[in-house]
Amino acid sequence: MDRFKVPVVGVDIGGTKIIAAVFDTDGAMLSRIHCLTRGSEGPNSVINRLSAAIINAIEKSGLKRKQVGCIGIAVAGAIDINRGLVGDSPNIPHWHNIPLRDRLVKSLGGPIFMLNDANAAALAEHRLGAGRGLNNMIYITVSTGIGGGMIINGELYQGTDGSAAEIGHMIIKIGGPLCKCGKHGCFEAMASGTAIARLAKSRLRRGEKSIMPGLVHDKVSNVTAETVAAAARKGDTLALAVIEESAGYLGIGIANLVNLMNPQMIIIGGGVSKMGEMLLKPTRKSMKANSIELPVSSVRLVRPGLGVDAELTGAALYAREMLGTKA
Amino acid sequence: MDRFKVPVVGVDIGGTKIIAAVFDTDGAMLSRIHCLTRGSEGPNSVINRLSAAIINAIEKSGLKRKQVGCIGIAVAGAIDINRGLVGDSPNIPHWHNIPLRDRLVKSLGGPIFMLNDANAAALAEHRLGAGRGLNNMIYITVSTGIGGGMIINGELYQGTDGSAAEIGHMIIKIGGPLCKCGKHGCFEAMASGTAIARLAKSRLRRGEKSIMPGLVHDKVSNVTAETVAAAARKGDTLALAVIEESAGYLGIGIANLVNLMNPQMIIIGGGVSKMGEMLLKPTRKSMKANSIELPVSSVRLVRPGLGVDAELTGAALYAREMLGTKA
Repeated sequence: MDRFKVPVVGVDIGGTKIIAAVFDTDGAMLSRIHCLTRGSEGPNSVINRLSAAIINAIEKSGLKRKQVGCIGIAVAGAIDINRGLVGDSPNIPHWHNIPLRDRLVKSLGGPIFMLNDANAAALAEHRLGAGRGLNNMIYITVSTGIGGGMIINGELYQGTDGSAAEIGHMIIKIGGPLCKCGKHGCFEAMASGTAIARLAKSRLRRGEKSIMPGLVHDKVSNVTAETVAAAARKGDTLALAVIEESAGYLGIGIANLVNLMNPQMIIIGGGVSKMGEMLLKPTRKSMKANSIELPVSSVRLVRPGLGVDAELTGAALYAREMLGTKA
Repeated sequence: MDRFKVPVVGVDIGGTKIIAAVFDTDGAMLSRIHCLTRGSEGPNSVINRLSAAIINAIEKSGLKRKQVGCIGIAVAGAIDINRGLVGDSPNIPHWHNIPLRDRLVKSLGGPIFMLNDANAAALAEHRLGAGRGLNNMIYITVSTGIGGGMIINGELYQGTDGSAAEIGHMIIKIGGPLCKCGKHGCFEAMASGTAIARLAKSRLRRGEKSIMPGLVHDKVSNVTAETVAAAARKGDTLALAVIEESAGYLGIGIANLVNLMNPQMIIIGGGVSKMGEMLLKPTRKSMKANSIELPVSSVRLVRPGLGVDAELTGAALYAREMLGTKA
C-alpha cells in the first residue's frame, strides 16, 4: 500500500460488526474502531453508527478529516457501484436500494467508494496476500453464506454494476435445498457453514451417533459449523462424514469456477475455511473429479494470506486505486 | 476487420466439417473451402485434410502463401493456447493432447494461432456482430453440446491456458443426467440439443401423445432437437412442453453466468437457438427468476449478429490481433 499519496479510511460493514480503520500513506494502520452493526434497528441507525465510527477512527488516528484522501467501504450483498446503492444485503435486514454513498458524502464529504465485501477481500489478497503477482485468481469466502471476488488480468473484475462474482447463488443442484434468497440448490445452500450445520442436524435427528449433541448441551438445534469442526477434530465419525459431504459440494462449485474462469489460483477464506486441510483435502479431490483436465491442472487451491482485516484493507486499497485513476 | 495490414486465413474445425477461408486486408472473404472432418479416421488423416484445405483456400484466393500473414484456427474442445495443443475435442474422437499448432507450422509455416471455437465466435460477435462496443459480454452456443466465450473489458478472456468459458460442463444439477464428459448434471447434459432430444424421446416412450413420431417415420430413436422444433412450430403440445422445460434449464445456466459475470449482454447462438423466440422467451423468464435482481436488470439476452461463419471469422480476427500485438 505504498503507491498513493494520501491516508485513507477503510470500512467493513458486516452482519454483526462495523469496523473502520485509517491507513497511512505507507499502508500502516493508524487506528481501528469497531462497533455493532445492529441491522435490526434499520438503515438510519446503522448509517449513523457507521458515520460515527469513521469520525472516531479519523480522530483516533491523529489526522484531520481534510488530510484523509478518500473513504472505501466494503458491504456484504449486491452493491451498485455506479449509483452507490446497497441493493440487498442478506446479513443486514431491511436494506434495499439504500443510497449509502450519497448519504455518507452528505455527512462526511467525499470521495467515497463502495464495493462488495468479498470483492474487497479479493483485491486485498491480490495486492498483499496469497495472490500477489497473479493475472487471474478467485477469492471465495465460506461462512454463513458464500461470496466471491475475481481478479482478471491483474485487476478486480466487478462487472457492469459491481455485482460480479456472486458465486453463492450459482445453482448447482436444481431442486436442492432452499436458499435464503428464495431459490433452491444455490452453492451457498449446499456448501456454506449454514449448510454444514443443516446437514449435521438432519443426520443427528435421524439418530446417528456422535459426540456433537454433548458439545451443545444436547440441544441439536444449536449445532453450528463450528460444532461440527470441533467434533471432527476429536475424530467424530459423523462430523467427519458431514465435512466430507459438504467438501464434495464445495469442490463442485469450485470446479464450475475452474471450468468457467481457468484461474491460476483459488483462495478459500471465511470462517469455515479455518477447518484447514480437514476441509480442503476432500474439497481438492472433488474439484479435480468435477473439473476439465486442462484448467484444473493449472490451478492451486489455497488459504488466504491475510487475516480478519482483509475486507477492510481491500476497501482502503480500492478507494486509493479509484482515487488514483480519477485524480 | 480493417485494422491490420495482411491477409489472413481463418479455419473452423467442427465435428462434421472443416472450413478454411482467406480474408483480405479489408476483411472481405476472398475464398472459402470446406471438406468433411472424418474424425473417425484419426488425427493424422484430419490434419492432412486440414492442411490441404488451407492450401486450397490460399490458392483459390489468388494469393501466394507468403502474402498470407498468419493462420487462425478455431477448434471445439479444451485448447491449450500456450502450447498449441488440442486437449480433448469432444466432437472429434481420438484427439488427446495433439500438438496441432506445431504439426501445421511444420507443413505450412507460421505464425499459427489456435483457440476454442466458441471463444472465436465470441470474438467475432464482439468485433463485428451483436456485441460491438460492449465492455462485457458472453457468447453461448447451444447445439449438440454447449460452449461459451467471454469478452471482458473489451477483450477475449481465455484464462490461464485458453480453456476459460467451458460453460457446458458447469454442473447445475448434482446427480442429474449423465453427460458425455462422464459427470452428471452438466449444463450441456440438461439444456443442449442432445438434452432436448433425450427429454422428448423419454416422454414419447412413456406414451405421451405427439405428432413427433410421424415426423421420424415412427422411429422415436431418430427424434432430434430439430424434430422437436418442427413439431412445436405446428403447435404440438408435447414438443412445446419439452422446449419449455429445456428453456427452464437453459435459463438457470444463464442465470449462473449473470450472477458470476454481471455482463451487459448474453448472445445465444448455435443450431438450437434457431428456434428463436419460442425458446428465448421461456429462457428469459427462467433467467430472470433465477438471477439476482441487480445484474439481471442490466443484461440483454439476444441472438447473434453473424451467421454460420462466426467461428471462422473469429479465428481470422484472433490471428490478426495476436499478430498485431506480437509485431
